[in-house]
Amino acid sequence: MSESKKFILQEQDIPTAWFNIIPAMPVKPAPMLDPASKRPLTAEDLFPLFSEEAARQELNFTDSWIEIPEQVRDLYKIWRPTPLVRARGLEKALDTPAHIYFKNESVSPVGSHKLNSAIPQAYYCKQQGVTNITTETGAGQWGTALSLASKMFGIELAVYMVKISFNQKPYRRSMMQTYGAQVIASPSMSTRAGRKIITEHPNYQGSLGTAISEAVELAMSTPNCKYALGSVMNHVALHQTVIGLEAERQMEMAGEYPDIVIGCFGGGSNFSGISFPFMRHNLAGDRTTRFIAAEPASCPKLTKGAMRYDFGDEAGYTPLIPMLTLGHNFSPANIHAGGLRYHGAGAVVSQLKADGLMEAVDIPQLETFEAATLFAKSEGLIPAPESSHAIAAAIREAKRAKEAGEAKVILFNLSGHGLIDMAAYDRYFAGDLANYDLSETDLTETIAGLDMVPGHE
Amino acid sequence: MSESKKFILQEQDIPTAWFNIIPAMPVKPAPMLDPASKRPLTAEDLFPLFSEEAARQELNFTDSWIEIPEQVRDLYKIWRPTPLVRARGLEKALDTPAHIYFKNESVSPVGSHKLNSAIPQAYYCKQQGVTNITTETGAGQWGTALSLASKMFGIELAVYMVKISFNQKPYRRSMMQTYGAQVIASPSMSTRAGRKIITEHPNYQGSLGTAISEAVELAMSTPNCKYALGSVMNHVALHQTVIGLEAERQMEMAGEYPDIVIGCFGGGSNFSGISFPFMRHNLAGDRTTRFIAAEPASCPKLTKGAMRYDFGDEAGYTPLIPMLTLGHNFSPANIHAGGLRYHGAGAVVSQLKADGLMEAVDIPQLETFEAATLFAKSEGLIPAPESSHAIAAAIREAKRAKEAGEAKVILFNLSGHGLIDMAAYDRYFAGDLANYDLSETDLTETIAGLDMVPGHE
Repeated sequence: MSESKKFILQEQDIPTAWFNIIPAMPVKPAPMLDPASKRPLTAEDLFPLFSEEAARQELNFTDSWIEIPEQVRDLYKIWRPTPLVRARGLEKALDTPAHIYFKNESVSPVGSHKLNSAIPQAYYCKQQGVTNITTETGAGQWGTALSLASKMFGIELAVYMVKISFNQKPYRRSMMQTYGAQVIASPSMSTRAGRKIITEHPNYQGSLGTAISEAVELAMSTPNCKYALGSVMNHVALHQTVIGLEAERQMEMAGEYPDIVIGCFGGGSNFSGISFPFMRHNLAGDRTTRFIAAEPASCPKLTKGAMRYDFGDEAGYTPLIPMLTLGHNFSPANIHAGGLRYHGAGAVVSQLKADGLMEAVDIPQLETFEAATLFAKSEGLIPAPESSHAIAAAIREAKRAKEAGEAKVILFNLSGHGLIDMAAYDRYFAGDLANYDLSETDLTETIAGLDMVPGHE
Repeated sequence: MSESKKFILQEQDIPTAWFNIIPAMPVKPAPMLDPASKRPLTAEDLFPLFSEEAARQELNFTDSWIEIPEQVRDLYKIWRPTPLVRARGLEKALDTPAHIYFKNESVSPVGSHKLNSAIPQAYYCKQQGVTNITTETGAGQWGTALSLASKMFGIELAVYMVKISFNQKPYRRSMMQTYGAQVIASPSMSTRAGRKIITEHPNYQGSLGTAISEAVELAMSTPNCKYALGSVMNHVALHQTVIGLEAERQMEMAGEYPDIVIGCFGGGSNFSGISFPFMRHNLAGDRTTRFIAAEPASCPKLTKGAMRYDFGDEAGYTPLIPMLTLGHNFSPANIHAGGLRYHGAGAVVSQLKADGLMEAVDIPQLETFEAATLFAKSEGLIPAPESSHAIAAAIREAKRAKEAGEAKVILFNLSGHGLIDMAAYDRYFAGDLANYDLSETDLTETIAGLDMVPGHE
C-alpha cells in the first residue's frame, strides 16, 4: 500500500482542555485599560460585554490548561477531530524535498475554524441565561459559525456584516439566514456609530472596526444581551488551540515534528490555534520550531504596525488593548481576504512578536491567489482567500527548502475553504485583482496620538 | 463521555474492491441495444465512447468484486473514508425513537460523492493514453468532480453545463475553471445537436439530455477523446459502492444494521452506491432491509415512468438503454435539484424496481427545502438540494417510526453539501419556489413510440 495522506483521530482524541499560553510566556502582555481612567481592567469590568466565563478566560494569566465543557466537546464531535493531511500533491508540484502538512479546518459544517470558538462562546452565554448575542463579521466566516452555534443553544443572534461583503458574498448571508440569524449590512442606521459614519460618508463600504462598534453598541443597549468576538481576544485564541493540540498528536502519528508552523493572520485566532501548542515546547526549551504569521501586504500590522494601546473597534467603544496596530482608523484595501482586513493583532501575539518568539510575512494578494490555484489543482481543495496567505507562505518556505536541499517539515493551517468566495477567483482569472502592497508606504499617520505600551517605547 | 456522533475509519479501511450487484440479481437487466440494428451491445461496441475498462465494467455480469486500482485508492485517500454520522440533533428535533444515520459524502473536496467515479473514469482514460474527455453537468457536481479528476491525470476536459445552471450557479462554473476545465453553456453552437435545438428554440435553457448529446458528439468527433458520464451507467454505480461498503463497516462500529436505506435519485449513482452493498444481504436472504429511492415529484421516472428502451440523451446518440423512463424528450421543471432533472433510471435500478427489490417515493420541492432547513439547524450541515430529497424521505420514515413507536434504524446518504446552492435557499425563504408535482399528471405522451423491454410489457 502506498503511503498515508491523512492522519485521522477518533472522537475520544478531541482534547479535553484548551492550552493557555500566557503562563508560559517569558513576558506577559500588558493589561487592557479602561479608556477613560486608563486603569487596568479586571474580568468583572468585562462582564457587561462578554459572558462571565469568557471574561474570566480573557484575564486568566495563571492556568495553563482550561477544561473544555462536556457539552462543547460533544458539539465539537459534529466535525472534530479534523484531518491532518500530508500535501504530497503540492510537494510534487513544487518538486521540493520539504514535507508539507496541513491541518484541514475547512471540514467544519460552516467551512472554517471559527466554530471552535463560536460554540464555547454561545455555550457560556447560555449557561448564564443570555437570550441574545450580537457580533460582527467581515467575509462572513465568523458570523456563519456563530449563527450555527447560537441556533444550537436557542439564542437569538444579530450579525453586523461589513457592507462590501454583504453585497459581494450573498451566499454567506444566506448561510447565516439558513441557520436563523438576523444579518444587517454595516454601517447601518440601527446604531449611533453606524448612523454617524453613514451621515459623514454615505458611500462607505464598511470595515470590521465599524461593524464591531455597531455590534458592541447594540449589545450594551439590549437587555440580557452579550457581544461575541471571533478573533483578537485571548479567550478566542484559547479555544482555537484544539487545532494545534490535535495536530501535535497527528504529527506524532506521521512520525515527524514541524520545523515551521504557519497560519494566516487577521486578529490572530487561527494562527494562535495552530501555533501555541507547538510553541509551548519552544518556550520550555525543548524545540526550536519557527512560527510564521502570514498577513496581507495591504494590512501589515505585524511587520509595519507599532505597539500601542488601541481600540478594537472604529468608534472607540472597546477597552484599550496593547497591540501591534496600524491604528483603529486605518482603512484596509478591499482585498478578498475580508477576514484579514483588521487593523490590530491580539495582545498575546503582539507580545510574542515583540519578543522575537514568532515571525511575520506580508503576502501580496496576487501571490495568494496563485498559491490557492496551485493548491486547488494539486490537493483538490479550493482554499479561502484568507487561508491562501498561509499556503503562499508555506510555498515560499518549501521553495527555500528546495534551494537549500533540506527536507524541512512545514505545517500550516487550512483555516477554511473558498467555496463561498468563487467570485474572487473569477476576478483573479480575469486579471481584475490588485496587490495593494503597503510595504513601501508610510503608515505612521493613523497611529498618531495612541499611547505607548510600557516596555515598547 | 457522551455517546459517539461519528464513526470514523482509517485510510487502510478504504475498500479494495467495488461491489458489482449484477451477478447477485435474480433477474439480470436486459442488454443495451444498438439503435439502428437493435442488436445487443458488447463491451467493444462501447470502446469508441468510453474508456475500454469502463466499457468492460459496464458489461460485466459475472464478477461480484472488481478490484480498485492502487492509484485510484490512493487518490480516494484525499478525503475517504468519509464519516458516518448519527444524526442525534435531527432525531431530537423530530422527537423520534428512530435512530437516524447519514453517510457524509459532502466532505469530498468538490462537495459530493461524484468524485468516487470521476477518479477511476479519468484513471482508465489515462491508462489507455486518452488526452481529452468531454462530459455534461446539470447542477455542476459531476462536472466539478471530473474537472478535478482530469487535472489529477493531466487530461483536458470540456464540460457542457446545462444553461440554466450555468447562469444560476456561477460558483460551480468558477470551481471547474479553477481546476482548469473548459465550461460551455448547453445548448451551445459548438455541436450539431446544440445548434439544432438553439435554432428551433432560441430561449431553451438546456437539459441534461441535451448536454449529454453535445458532449457525446464532441467526443466522437475529437481524436483521442472519450466521453464520461456521472450517473445512469452500471460502471458509475459500481464505483459508488465504496459509499455503502464503508457505511456497512461503520454501522458495525455503531452496533446497528439499517432497517431502511435511502438515497436521492437522479440517474441512480448515489442511491446505488449507498444501497447495493446492503442489498446483497437481502439478495442472499440474510436481511430484509427496505431500500428507498427519493426522486423529485417533478421528475417521477421511478414511480410514473414505464420500462422502455430509451436513449440516454435528447438527440439520440447513445445506445438504447432498458430503463424506467419518462421519455428522452421529457422536459423537467426547473427545480433547484438540477442533478435529479433526468428522464430515466439506470438499467440495474430499473430492473430492481420492477422486481420489487426496492421502493421509490416522490418528494415535492417545498418539502425538500423544509427538510434541508431543519437538517441545517439541527445537524449544522447545509445540504445540496438533491440530497435534501433523501433527508425528506428519511424524515417521513422517522415520523412513521414515531407514530408506530418503533426504534427503526434509518440510514441515508448525504450525497453533497449545498454551499454552491445558497441562492436556492434564498428563493425558498422568499416564498418563490413551486412544487411542480406531477403525481396527478398524465405522463404517457413522451414515451410514445419507445420499444418495450422484453419481460416488461
